[in-house]
Amino acid sequence: MRTSQYLLSTQKETPSDAEVISHQLMLRAGMIRKLASGLYTWLPSGLRVLNKIADIVRDEMNKAGAIEVLMPVVQPADLWEESGRWEEYGPELLRIKDRHQRDFVLGPTHEEVITALVRNEISSYKQLPLNLYQIQTKFRDEVRPRFGIMRGREFTMKDAYSFHMDSDCLDKTYQAMYKAYSNIFTRLGLDFRAVIADSGAIGGSVSHEFHVLAASGEDDIAFSSGSDYAANVEMAEAIAPEQTAVASGQPASEKAATQQSLEAFCEENGVSLAQALKLVMVKAHSEDEQNSDNWVVLALRADHTLNEVKAEKLPGIASPLQIASEDTAAALLNCPLAFANPLALELPLVVDHSAAALVDFVCGAGKADTLLTNANWTDKPESADIRNVVAGDPSPDGNGVLDIKRGIEVGHIFQLGDKYSKAMNCGVLSESGKHQTLTMGCYGIGVSRIVAAAIEQNHDKYGIIWPDPIAPFKVALIPMNMHKSQRIMEAAERIYATLTAQGVEVLFDDRKERPGVMFNDMELIGIPHSIVIGERNLDNQQVEYKNRRSGEKQLLDIEAVSDFIASL
Amino acid sequence: MRTSQYLLSTQKETPSDAEVISHQLMLRAGMIRKLASGLYTWLPSGLRVLNKIADIVRDEMNKAGAIEVLMPVVQPADLWEESGRWEEYGPELLRIKDRHQRDFVLGPTHEEVITALVRNEISSYKQLPLNLYQIQTKFRDEVRPRFGIMRGREFTMKDAYSFHMDSDCLDKTYQAMYKAYSNIFTRLGLDFRAVIADSGAIGGSVSHEFHVLAASGEDDIAFSSGSDYAANVEMAEAIAPEQTAVASGQPASEKAATQQSLEAFCEENGVSLAQALKLVMVKAHSEDEQNSDNWVVLALRADHTLNEVKAEKLPGIASPLQIASEDTAAALLNCPLAFANPLALELPLVVDHSAAALVDFVCGAGKADTLLTNANWTDKPESADIRNVVAGDPSPDGNGVLDIKRGIEVGHIFQLGDKYSKAMNCGVLSESGKHQTLTMGCYGIGVSRIVAAAIEQNHDKYGIIWPDPIAPFKVALIPMNMHKSQRIMEAAERIYATLTAQGVEVLFDDRKERPGVMFNDMELIGIPHSIVIGERNLDNQQVEYKNRRSGEKQLLDIEAVSDFIASL
Repeated sequence: MRTSQYLLSTQKETPSDAEVISHQLMLRAGMIRKLASGLYTWLPSGLRVLNKIADIVRDEMNKAGAIEVLMPVVQPADLWEESGRWEEYGPELLRIKDRHQRDFVLGPTHEEVITALVRNEISSYKQLPLNLYQIQTKFRDEVRPRFGIMRGREFTMKDAYSFHMDSDCLDKTYQAMYKAYSNIFTRLGLDFRAVIADSGAIGGSVSHEFHVLAASGEDDIAFSSGSDYAANVEMAEAIAPEQTAVASGQPASEKAATQQSLEAFCEENGVSLAQALKLVMVKAHSEDEQNSDNWVVLALRADHTLNEVKAEKLPGIASPLQIASEDTAAALLNCPLAFANPLALELPLVVDHSAAALVDFVCGAGKADTLLTNANWTDKPESADIRNVVAGDPSPDGNGVLDIKRGIEVGHIFQLGDKYSKAMNCGVLSESGKHQTLTMGCYGIGVSRIVAAAIEQNHDKYGIIWPDPIAPFKVALIPMNMHKSQRIMEAAERIYATLTAQGVEVLFDDRKERPGVMFNDMELIGIPHSIVIGERNLDNQQVEYKNRRSGEKQLLDIEAVSDFIASL
Repeated sequence: MRTSQYLLSTQKETPSDAEVISHQLMLRAGMIRKLASGLYTWLPSGLRVLNKIADIVRDEMNKAGAIEVLMPVVQPADLWEESGRWEEYGPELLRIKDRHQRDFVLGPTHEEVITALVRNEISSYKQLPLNLYQIQTKFRDEVRPRFGIMRGREFTMKDAYSFHMDSDCLDKTYQAMYKAYSNIFTRLGLDFRAVIADSGAIGGSVSHEFHVLAASGEDDIAFSSGSDYAANVEMAEAIAPEQTAVASGQPASEKAATQQSLEAFCEENGVSLAQALKLVMVKAHSEDEQNSDNWVVLALRADHTLNEVKAEKLPGIASPLQIASEDTAAALLNCPLAFANPLALELPLVVDHSAAALVDFVCGAGKADTLLTNANWTDKPESADIRNVVAGDPSPDGNGVLDIKRGIEVGHIFQLGDKYSKAMNCGVLSESGKHQTLTMGCYGIGVSRIVAAAIEQNHDKYGIIWPDPIAPFKVALIPMNMHKSQRIMEAAERIYATLTAQGVEVLFDDRKERPGVMFNDMELIGIPHSIVIGERNLDNQQVEYKNRRSGEKQLLDIEAVSDFIASL
């Protein structure tokens, strides 16, 4: 492709309304343009990246035995009424009426449509399992679309849905999808983790998210230094430490605590924050809300944070988790929660495993502005895992220690069970001739979101650094002052013809621009490999190669360019 | 692909609600399924065809220098207000509101979005010409969706828009698109015609439609036996015949005409209908509607039909064409129009070229139930082209004679001019530094519609007959009773492995079905080439090849199968 016959659309200025780097660079590099809030047109370079991602996704889905279909964007409301989501789904579901005032939705997802399809098409267990997917436009009416295509309203998804007679069969397809997703993100050239996820409201029991690691990610991911283990911090298990510390035997002593914080108190008393307790009061699960027994106190190490997902799964705790206000807690305990004594509480107490392993710790003394030092559990208390893991925690699988990084969710696989198949009566005759409701899985990849995630992970101050497999072009061909030099033009045309004939995607910058403008544009767009043709090197029948990521340069004999590019 | 791991979804019964053969066969062959009125899910085989068509379209558009982009389905209303189409467009434009009650539309076309994009991206004549296209989902809220995907509501279009400084430049791109479209339909393996079209309300001066010829088409197309000339019948010129006939010299004579029709009168009097005149009275263009001068009489050969598009373009005729009622005509003429004498009219008369060339003709005598025979023009009248061409007419380009066939419109190219660029203020600085409004072209292909049109043109009583380039699979591999014969299974697996390794798309029917069921399914789906493996032929190390279109069969040595398929 010659730039003179292309729509380059690069911009020097950083757009003021773009908050994240991927959004800024996609605008500056001419990948997308905003049409309206959350709606973007894909310009040629952006679309080339999007299509490459889609091609890799499609290839791996096919290899894994999934079959491609294409469902409409516009879906009739009656299917959503059948599944119950016409009522359940919030205003992200854009409800529309056609010219005959019939209700439809713009599909944010296709569980209803595929379940209705399968219940009509499949009549026998012999036709199962079946895994159908599509790569298609979806719409979610976000209340505040932001970060460009990262959280847009119209976007491209790959969504797959599998159907099975039983959960063993589902599990096999789930594993195949897990493998396919790992292949996809590996082939895309991205640093990613498959993490154990909370399946949340979608209602299955097993679920993994696939995250592209990037400092700007919205999710914290814990992963092991010594194994494949990775989990959303919400889901990562903090394993109970072995009880190795032994109490000093010194008695606990009361100290006035007038400092601004527990941290300041510990510092003044030469104790680590990791050696102190903090308390949280949460509502217990009970029918009688007026009863004061209706609260439970949770104790954690003061340097740890409560994991609400874990806490609300404890028996006897109300879900969703409700944390007591300071006033409620003080009234029940007759002193502020911060100074309540966990060793002498009248309310039920749940102690985190790490807090339970402490000796000679700091905690409340049971009266205002007073703390105990050298406190110890009388008997080691019953403990549970109720905290978020931190970097350095042992990995729950026993191999290595955990590190925590931020990630951008780009894929999600679920074991759905019978949520939709039951509501929509999707079943077949089993081998024994009885009607049986199907078991389902669903598997999503945010195809357009990957474009932004890849940039969040791969950029520098000059622009985007595309991984080779998804770069809009593999090679930028930059002849300096070609329009003033016949021999530079000839060399450029020859190299362009040779590489193109080899099937290499080359962006040949044949504009009448200063070399600096051309270098800047090609770096901004993020083309992985550049060939620069200049007078001086041409004297030696050479050109300069530059690697976008490493910045390394080297001289190549003109005759060797083609082999060199092929070897990359 | 193995049928056991595929979603075949064939049906024996013809669905009762499918009127046209393509709709019936697409349902029966498992290509599509209806989701709601005018909304269809593409099943795996249908999607394979759709994607092959899209790939060919994309390849030829790229070769012709067009650049691919992707615009949103959902478009903001303000752009449609700018162009004026928010008011002009009928209820086919689905208007929707988002959660914030802002107005949007589901795009049936993208002139507004692309014009807004280009006015922001392009600032100089140096960046032109530019031809941008997309292959994308569109929505048109048809009042009565029918014929399956032929006239659905959600469909796939390729739409391109070009931008130019002047009409000469537009004309070059228009010609390149004409060529690209011809290449596309040739590569798709379809019998098509590029026809001169009436550009109708879209408002350009030059326009061609691309039609797939099929008996079930909605449009009549006239095309030459001796050249590339083709035109929508509405637009085909009927050239004036040379005046070769000479009047007999016999005087005209009045005859009573009590027969039911002019045709019956002619038959009784031994005169051809082509030797008779018929009259039509239409409103003249005039400010004063009460004036009786405000009508014009048109005279045609009785075997010809009036072309209303041509008639309303005549000077002095009101547009749109208004035809006088029988009563109005009789009152003005003092006798029924059928018996009015064109040789003695007080109203203006326009005679069709062919009618003007008649001698010794039949026409009205100027009083009820009376006709003249042997009538002749006193002086040859002024004549015009106001009729539809018929088969056998000379081609307007002077080469060959016209034939008329029915066609299905699958593509349309327009020279739009400045309709959108003017309304939306899309211009750039010209070479002389002045602001200049751009000139536009637009170029559409109904990608999903081609699937149906291809079937309308290519089918028989057994099912679809896909042209090779768009067939869902090239080869059907049909082993007879494989599950009872080890050697048939081995031969099938070997051929499947060999062909697949060669890159041939094979549908391997490995179901436990009777051979008849398998043959019927593969013929219904329309796979162009079949390899049948049976015990008897296997004794001679042979298999049977069958061509879907010709029905020809031949025996092949197993070792020769691979070369034979490659040679097709």
